[in-house]
Amino acid sequence: MDTTFENITLQPIGMVRNNIKQPFIIASEKGLKMREGHAPTHEMIHKANDTVSEVVLNSDLAEHLDGIEEFSHITILYWAHGVPREACALKKIRPRGNPNNPPVGLFCTRSPARPNPILTTVARLVGREGTTLKVTGLDAIDGSPVLDIKPCIKEFYPTDNVKIPVWMEKIRASFRHEKTND
Amino acid sequence: MDTTFENITLQPIGMVRNNIKQPFIIASEKGLKMREGHAPTHEMIHKANDTVSEVVLNSDLAEHLDGIEEFSHITILYWAHGVPREACALKKIRPRGNPNNPPVGLFCTRSPARPNPILTTVARLVGREGTTLKVTGLDAIDGSPVLDIKPCIKEFYPTDNVKIPVWMEKIRASFRHEKTND
Repeated sequence: MDTTFENITLQPIGMVRNNIKQPFIIASEKGLKMREGHAPTHEMIHKANDTVSEVVLNSDLAEHLDGIEEFSHITILYWAHGVPREACALKKIRPRGNPNNPPVGLFCTRSPARPNPILTTVARLVGREGTTLKVTGLDAIDGSPVLDIKPCIKEFYPTDNVKIPVWMEKIRASFRHEKTND
Repeated sequence: MDTTFENITLQPIGMVRNNIKQPFIIASEKGLKMREGHAPTHEMIHKANDTVSEVVLNSDLAEHLDGIEEFSHITILYWAHGVPREACALKKIRPRGNPNNPPVGLFCTRSPARPNPILTTVARLVGREGTTLKVTGLDAIDGSPVLDIKPCIKEFYPTDNVKIPVWMEKIRASFRHEKTND
């Protein structure tokens, strides 16, 4: 029998501000769909990597950030507020909304549409003004509620013998290919 | 003026089961404290790395996990249920509860006591039975509510030019030293 858990309540600590106003991949109860076809969507995702985002934290969190400038990278936890509730019930999806990708279990993907849509991204910290952090490489849309900031320590991520499925290798390779042709 | 956010509600998707019944580092409103002194606590943390934990997910999540065995590593998001609420208000802490470490801003650490105590760990996936995943390297205590499972894809973590402060380098070095003397 499944355990019944009490709900957990979170209070966001800030908000993402950037020029990404809509998600590149749209989630609905039918699945994921690329916003503007394969090539343009890939290009938008690629370009977004250089976008400077502001992570605007509440003004009472200045002490919490003391010393953060000494880290080159931080992990940002944020809430996928743009994903409709019914899309979070999807069990299998075609990764990136690409009809050529096989449907796979939701937990095999980093789809924003998931039972608890908490997203985690490692971003480069490029500046700080008070309780506002400037970062690149954050794939959050404008207005995303921020839940946590953690330091990025590379030893916490394995680099040897990390295996991923063939379908995921293909997706990663397509991104690498794009980057080298930039 | 700070933005006022609506609270976010999460429903856990499962629970961690293992033989780690108490946290190694105790958080209270006074700060962090090692459970049994420096050396024994370090040893406990080190040994815990080999502990096999079961991530027991709700039985209606079988489809969500379809294909997960093809990944060698997964990221587990869980809730630090053992941390008292008042400890989550700490602004600065001495990392690992070691009085020799300087007090640093909470967001410069991965302390379980934080405004939204969502913890993220990359673990090695060693087996699956139905909706129960067996993993090593998960530093969660028994009974921790699980919030999400994500695949670990090493390209999402930078490995070049990742800088951390000197105080953090020293902590990491002390762990490396321990491991080589095992």
